[in-house]
Amino acid sequence: MDFSDWMKGVQARTEAALDHYLPAAGQAPARLHEAMRYAALGGGKRVRPLLCHAAGEALGAAPGMLDAAAAAVEMIHVYSLVHDDLPSMDNDALRRGKPTVHVRYDDATGLLVGDALQSQAFVTLCAPVLPVPLRAALVGELAVASGSVGMAGGQAIDLASVGLKLDRAALETMHRLKTGALLRAAVRMGALTGAMGQATEVAPAGTPVAGTPVAGTPVAGTPVAGTPVADAQRAALDAYADAIGLAFQVVDDILDVTADSATLGKTAGKDALADKPTYVSILGLDASRALAKSLRHDAHRALESFGARALRLAQLADLIVERAY
Amino acid sequence: MDFSDWMKGVQARTEAALDHYLPAAGQAPARLHEAMRYAALGGGKRVRPLLCHAAGEALGAAPGMLDAAAAAVEMIHVYSLVHDDLPSMDNDALRRGKPTVHVRYDDATGLLVGDALQSQAFVTLCAPVLPVPLRAALVGELAVASGSVGMAGGQAIDLASVGLKLDRAALETMHRLKTGALLRAAVRMGALTGAMGQATEVAPAGTPVAGTPVAGTPVAGTPVAGTPVADAQRAALDAYADAIGLAFQVVDDILDVTADSATLGKTAGKDALADKPTYVSILGLDASRALAKSLRHDAHRALESFGARALRLAQLADLIVERAY
Repeated sequence: MDFSDWMKGVQARTEAALDHYLPAAGQAPARLHEAMRYAALGGGKRVRPLLCHAAGEALGAAPGMLDAAAAAVEMIHVYSLVHDDLPSMDNDALRRGKPTVHVRYDDATGLLVGDALQSQAFVTLCAPVLPVPLRAALVGELAVASGSVGMAGGQAIDLASVGLKLDRAALETMHRLKTGALLRAAVRMGALTGAMGQATEVAPAGTPVAGTPVAGTPVAGTPVAGTPVADAQRAALDAYADAIGLAFQVVDDILDVTADSATLGKTAGKDALADKPTYVSILGLDASRALAKSLRHDAHRALESFGARALRLAQLADLIVERAY
Repeated sequence: MDFSDWMKGVQARTEAALDHYLPAAGQAPARLHEAMRYAALGGGKRVRPLLCHAAGEALGAAPGMLDAAAAAVEMIHVYSLVHDDLPSMDNDALRRGKPTVHVRYDDATGLLVGDALQSQAFVTLCAPVLPVPLRAALVGELAVASGSVGMAGGQAIDLASVGLKLDRAALETMHRLKTGALLRAAVRMGALTGAMGQATEVAPAGTPVAGTPVAGTPVAGTPVAGTPVADAQRAALDAYADAIGLAFQVVDDILDVTADSATLGKTAGKDALADKPTYVSILGLDASRALAKSLRHDAHRALESFGARALRLAQLADLIVERAY
């Protein structure tokens, strides 16, 4: 399968998984559920689910388990976008080519949609398809990456840095938290699913098998599944994730000054307008482009020990650097 | 130990557990961590931690494990208060006798403090002191109770009902989600800790024992701990939680019209001002008081099969109905 078909396949799986793991639009409270689905479905590049599936494939994970992990990390990403767009944050009206949630609904609904999407991510990681020890491991990764020493902490530093002259190191620290932590979690969650999920996927989700313990009700004496990711593999994947995480942000900053809003599906030029420090404002456009290429090289090198199994991860590194939106 | 001393003991443990499970104030990003601690520490009745410990005691749970569960459920409660106080929601300036987070800091920080406290609750449920299967079970309870079919969903219904004439059934549905779901989760999480935590607490947190698997790295073949709460016990505890959950709200509505802001530590009379439906506005004051007493009776009856083990749960039902703030 070529990369483009693989990517479309994962994006379609992710859309289906989000549809499955989000409450139905008709379920009460219907307006909230409709707004959650408005925010999460039908758009987005699904970069985090792609990373999760690519890392999972490198470690032989079952696709049905990866769907749950990928949906959860995407719900966290979407919640962060919804809150980031609120008037008290970036006050943005356009996202993924559609009116933002608080514009389409109202500010309070935007707040609650984000809150409920965060909860739903952790509900999703308790899906019956995932072995119990894997659930706990995935929750640990995602919660740390989402919180005050991860994404939310990066947002706080971002807010505090508006109008300040950050140096490159401070900018990098901010982005390592704001976007890097969740991208890294997506890779790690895929790898964990490969390492810890293999022993027990005996049946697809929702198909009870006679004699199989009901999910969520572990029975004393049942062996736990799998083993965690080996240290060397995890270090290699973290190095990969760090490189593509920074590359992603550098390219975002480049696109903010070189692309238009219609192409981006969000407001272009807003960083300069908000006087936010960016790689382009600190390094200039040419050096930023060179940095993105060098980070792509770092990402490829980190994957060497995986050989052909890391094909999709390598292709995603290329995509992240070469993307036009 | 008399009830008052027991309660003070749990409140002190909870304060210490929150201090332990929240990132240090000096840790970067320092302003966010300081604001999270401002919101969570040094106040509050700690009703949910009290319920968690009381239910845990009824099922023989280890106090150190209950501390983690109680801190997590309190972090969710505090996050909901911080977001509820934001200008786009209730726009409240006073909470637990102090300026609200967005007043003391700013609106964006209020948003991020709530977001990060929610993540931190799930980080806390991955604490090394908890056996891995218990972590997954607690996450499942707390995530469902926090989300769109629990607390956040109740908030959405509450918002949509301002100015409407709700009947008693609709009001009850709203409160079952908005406050009832988390109170029930607190009881269930204590019970789960009793049922699933007993087999493995061989050492206090942070004291590695030779031969013990390192927390977070489950090893294939390790037996999982404990068994879930028996159906009859869970049904009894759910009935108890439903009764005290509604009683809690009825008494809140009574106090909103009979107590002053200084006693409550939050703005009194705001429901009537906001034209929000309450038990007092629907039933009147006398019938609301009679309802609270009848719910207390229901709570006591639900506990009968537990005998003396449920002493603290019974005393908490009394406290919830008789409280003055």
